[in-house]
Amino acid sequence: MNNVLAVDIGGTHFRTGLFDEQGRRLLVLEGDTDRVAGRDWMLNQLAARCRELMAQTDAPVKACGLSFGGPVDFRSQSVTSVHSAGWKGFELGKWMQESLGIPCRLDNDANAGALGEYHYGAGRGAKSMVYITISTGIGSGIVYDGKLLRGKDYMAGELGHIPVSDSGARCSCGGRGCLESFSSGGAIESRARDWAERRPERVARMVELSGGGEITAKGLMQAAAEGDVAATHILRETTRWLARGLLMVIRILNPDVIVLGGGVAQSGVILLDSLHTFLDELASPTITYSTEIVTATLGNYSPLYGAAAMGLDISRD
Amino acid sequence: MNNVLAVDIGGTHFRTGLFDEQGRRLLVLEGDTDRVAGRDWMLNQLAARCRELMAQTDAPVKACGLSFGGPVDFRSQSVTSVHSAGWKGFELGKWMQESLGIPCRLDNDANAGALGEYHYGAGRGAKSMVYITISTGIGSGIVYDGKLLRGKDYMAGELGHIPVSDSGARCSCGGRGCLESFSSGGAIESRARDWAERRPERVARMVELSGGGEITAKGLMQAAAEGDVAATHILRETTRWLARGLLMVIRILNPDVIVLGGGVAQSGVILLDSLHTFLDELASPTITYSTEIVTATLGNYSPLYGAAAMGLDISRD
Repeated sequence: MNNVLAVDIGGTHFRTGLFDEQGRRLLVLEGDTDRVAGRDWMLNQLAARCRELMAQTDAPVKACGLSFGGPVDFRSQSVTSVHSAGWKGFELGKWMQESLGIPCRLDNDANAGALGEYHYGAGRGAKSMVYITISTGIGSGIVYDGKLLRGKDYMAGELGHIPVSDSGARCSCGGRGCLESFSSGGAIESRARDWAERRPERVARMVELSGGGEITAKGLMQAAAEGDVAATHILRETTRWLARGLLMVIRILNPDVIVLGGGVAQSGVILLDSLHTFLDELASPTITYSTEIVTATLGNYSPLYGAAAMGLDISRD
Repeated sequence: MNNVLAVDIGGTHFRTGLFDEQGRRLLVLEGDTDRVAGRDWMLNQLAARCRELMAQTDAPVKACGLSFGGPVDFRSQSVTSVHSAGWKGFELGKWMQESLGIPCRLDNDANAGALGEYHYGAGRGAKSMVYITISTGIGSGIVYDGKLLRGKDYMAGELGHIPVSDSGARCSCGGRGCLESFSSGGAIESRARDWAERRPERVARMVELSGGGEITAKGLMQAAAEGDVAATHILRETTRWLARGLLMVIRILNPDVIVLGGGVAQSGVILLDSLHTFLDELASPTITYSTEIVTATLGNYSPLYGAAAMGLDISRD
């Protein structure tokens, strides 16, 4: 029996896990990301925890998969750029490989999350699956016949930056009308700020559910689930655009299943119901489809499981 | 040396061809489609010409590929529906197989055109290719790793019906804001009719180049190539939306190459130049791509060559 390591580096949490050959989680260590402490602090944390996990098992640990919560250049196995200092251009795959002495593979969290859901979550048994993670931004990974569809420049699945609107809102990527600027957690929170300024009397419940400060996407989704009018309005505006994005994916790929992950998708049925309302409105009576739309079953752990799948993949090479 | 037959059934022309094992065209017979004469007339024409081609060669003819210019149910090898009477539900694949006594395979002309360009045209050597045919409507076929990407309901590549606009124009499919209702040959001709009504003094050259009657997409593209102001305006409106559709494909699939086929694409450089202008406007400085956009090299023959590729594929089974 061989084991593998899995690492998931996110902006707020990081996780390291030991998995067996069937992708079963044997042990997971979690920590809070200290953004101020920087890159070297994080690297030391990761290496120490990975060694701790390796020491917990008598079975050989063959490889390690790494999920990074930001843009990654898969070919050079390096971090492309992040807002936190010190990461840009860093060859994280190589560093881990040298640090742990086992083969490592690095990918971004959207691709890792896609692999996690495909092998162990909501995408099991599918031939084709599109995983869309909706948190601060929107990312996605496409699995076709068991393999990630990467594209010529390794830029396939950039769903956050498909143009959904011709109204021309400027996105953080510099493009215009991107899905991310309409339907991400960041977009939800931006709409909530507008409401808080213009109609402060309408946002009380959202503020309360967000812990009393700035309205969070999570607090807003909870308020919408309770039937709060303003929250429902913002949710509908968000899902109206997301439905257009999903329909584009369906028309182009017609996958077996679309799996929605990330923090916003954890609101579950309230999101799915609203999406289906708008998808029904956009439907064509002649061009039908049976692509299923579901939420991720691994929750916050989709990328970690995906990192395990990546580790298992290289351990078989 | 084995040969195969290829058949391309279109709304205005039909073609039957004899191809060798390398996909080289040995002999092609062309005819005009007589829509009034109906289905049985067409079937008799096809069978007779196929037999004529089979009689021209001493090499065994192993299989036949069929491209149909309208919706096809690939699973049942039947025609789904067309505007001409008698075709709906007709098991064309089976009929040809029984008529010719060799294995046959039927697909729609977008998928056939994609295979043609992938194996023998502008997509040669690509790993991933999206073929988009722009004539009266817009169809497409996606080839990934040498195989058509079909989707769960065999509805992948329905590019004509991706929602590009939130302005809500109703499409012939019953949906709203579809690419086809903005960027097809039909959309071009509809815009030209508007101009002819509102500004008859501006459309003289387009009418002339269209043969004196209704303005055709072909006549309009020729006028635009000459610098005609109204034609250029309509071309720009058409390509502005098409660029949005192409960017969606690029963001989702990031293919090696997008091949534009069909009558409208035969205008070549005037279409590509205009497309690139709008793609540059939509570009993100951070999310770049090197997907090439080219016109089909097999022109009207893309689907026939693709039918040959389908025939060769089954002859190897």
